[in-house]
Amino acid sequence: MISSFKVPSIRDIVSSSNRIQQYIHKTPVLTSTSINELIGASLYFKCENYQKVGAFKIRGATNAILQLNDKEKTNGVVTHSSGNHGQAIALAAKWFNSKAYIIMPENSAKPKIEAIRGYGAEIIFCGPTQRDREVTVENLITKTNAHFIHPYDDDRIICGQATAAKEFMEEMPDLDYIIAPIGGGGLISGTILSAQYFNPKTKIIGVEPQEVDDAYQSLKAGVLQKNGTINTLADGLRASLSERTFSIIKNGIHEIITISEAEMIKAMRLVWERMKIIIEPSSATVMAAALKQKEKLKGKKIGLIITGGNVDLEALPFTTHSY
Amino acid sequence: MISSFKVPSIRDIVSSSNRIQQYIHKTPVLTSTSINELIGASLYFKCENYQKVGAFKIRGATNAILQLNDKEKTNGVVTHSSGNHGQAIALAAKWFNSKAYIIMPENSAKPKIEAIRGYGAEIIFCGPTQRDREVTVENLITKTNAHFIHPYDDDRIICGQATAAKEFMEEMPDLDYIIAPIGGGGLISGTILSAQYFNPKTKIIGVEPQEVDDAYQSLKAGVLQKNGTINTLADGLRASLSERTFSIIKNGIHEIITISEAEMIKAMRLVWERMKIIIEPSSATVMAAALKQKEKLKGKKIGLIITGGNVDLEALPFTTHSY
Repeated sequence: MISSFKVPSIRDIVSSSNRIQQYIHKTPVLTSTSINELIGASLYFKCENYQKVGAFKIRGATNAILQLNDKEKTNGVVTHSSGNHGQAIALAAKWFNSKAYIIMPENSAKPKIEAIRGYGAEIIFCGPTQRDREVTVENLITKTNAHFIHPYDDDRIICGQATAAKEFMEEMPDLDYIIAPIGGGGLISGTILSAQYFNPKTKIIGVEPQEVDDAYQSLKAGVLQKNGTINTLADGLRASLSERTFSIIKNGIHEIITISEAEMIKAMRLVWERMKIIIEPSSATVMAAALKQKEKLKGKKIGLIITGGNVDLEALPFTTHSY
Repeated sequence: MISSFKVPSIRDIVSSSNRIQQYIHKTPVLTSTSINELIGASLYFKCENYQKVGAFKIRGATNAILQLNDKEKTNGVVTHSSGNHGQAIALAAKWFNSKAYIIMPENSAKPKIEAIRGYGAEIIFCGPTQRDREVTVENLITKTNAHFIHPYDDDRIICGQATAAKEFMEEMPDLDYIIAPIGGGGLISGTILSAQYFNPKTKIIGVEPQEVDDAYQSLKAGVLQKNGTINTLADGLRASLSERTFSIIKNGIHEIITISEAEMIKAMRLVWERMKIIIEPSSATVMAAALKQKEKLKGKKIGLIITGGNVDLEALPFTTHSY
């Protein structure tokens, strides 16, 4: 299969940034002397855990919903996501008086269900498979004419997520690298495009848990691969790339680093203990990558995108003192 | 017993502030829209969890050590504390080339021992009682001539801790209340003095866990009472007041609120989940007090001193979804 997507332009990203700016937080960039000493480099943490809904996902969701016409808004929007994208769509829909339908597996965690209901969205439960989700979405669209907003296979989402790196590089124009995690590829695609358009000297490194390394495998094979399992604590990174996000990654990524679950948990603990900030497992992957690659990163200026801070405090992975 | 301490002057606090300023962080003041909505008031969190050693204690420790003469510095300093004060003395001693001896109970948590050793201090273990600590301190002083720096019964410490509220009120000059926890009374005494000297309209509210409510009981009785137990998760608040700190509290506190362990844990969880910042149980007491008193606080501007962020990630209290 040949992928030939029209990639979003610099103008698309600039207009997305202008469109959403007043609704989202300009998140802080934090540093830690002790972590810098540990890595031997200067690390800058772009803290999207302090973003609305506790994750960067509100950027793409707001960008998509603000481009709907009145009829589409009235019919409502639908997405399938038990995580941060679901919350983001629910909140953005509430802001702009649209109805949101969120398709979630029956076994979703209770706090996530409560959070989405708290934003006034209607939850429709489905079975556990990807096919269950798709059928439920299709049925709902048939019934309601709701407008579907995919979590990442959508240029409005990619352009929205791109604004995180744009904002980051405006504040820190001389980063050698930005490290960001790869799930379905919305954030990393946006990050790659923003670097190409606004700061081509900044190289983009992607990170995946070894258990869900479809992007790494796809790059190696040259064609899109799917994750065989979703066996990772990084619940934000279980999705597989689409042809759209793969084509952007293929053409723009500097490197993909894969990390183990143990490396991720160790990195999460390091950030919690040294920086006193709550980051979710998916975000800890970028710290893990910096620890793993410290020899190569020595003396560099490195931006880390901390994607979110939504964790289940009743199921934390800190059982042994691991470093 | 009649207490007649000469209370530190405005000049003492100003010179302490000038003395330590270049060595400590000016910590951020954070806010949370969702917590403001919950309380119906404007809350400002002075985040000393982002202070060096992860707690305000470095203020007092630095202030004390900077006032030693060369001979005292050479002999070294000693304190008894298995917690944040011990770490603070260890770090400040390292900065100014003094030797630090930290007296700790044998059963202290391993991460705390490691942190203090990491700052280059010498740890001397002792038995579990207050008397064990005191004897060990006396023996060490006899042997080494080390200079004793009490965790709170010391004007240099009180003046150092006072700089947190001074800094807070400089940034937020129109607070109706500042809420701070009460352990041995060093922080609350400093907070009371800073308010009296720099911002007399700001009323100071103290908070104690019900299990260690010696300040509340002392105020009620009119004479100093001691804690009967140390049965609280708030490990920073187990100490009892001294005559010195009680005399300042008696003359300056607006109110003392006591809270249950369950209220403290619920408040800690609220701050972790909504603000994505790590605060220790002792700090969560102030959020618990604001929740408990929300009717009285409605519409007010309230400063909360978040004292620290040092928690044992292997022993977190979040076992059930509690709100």
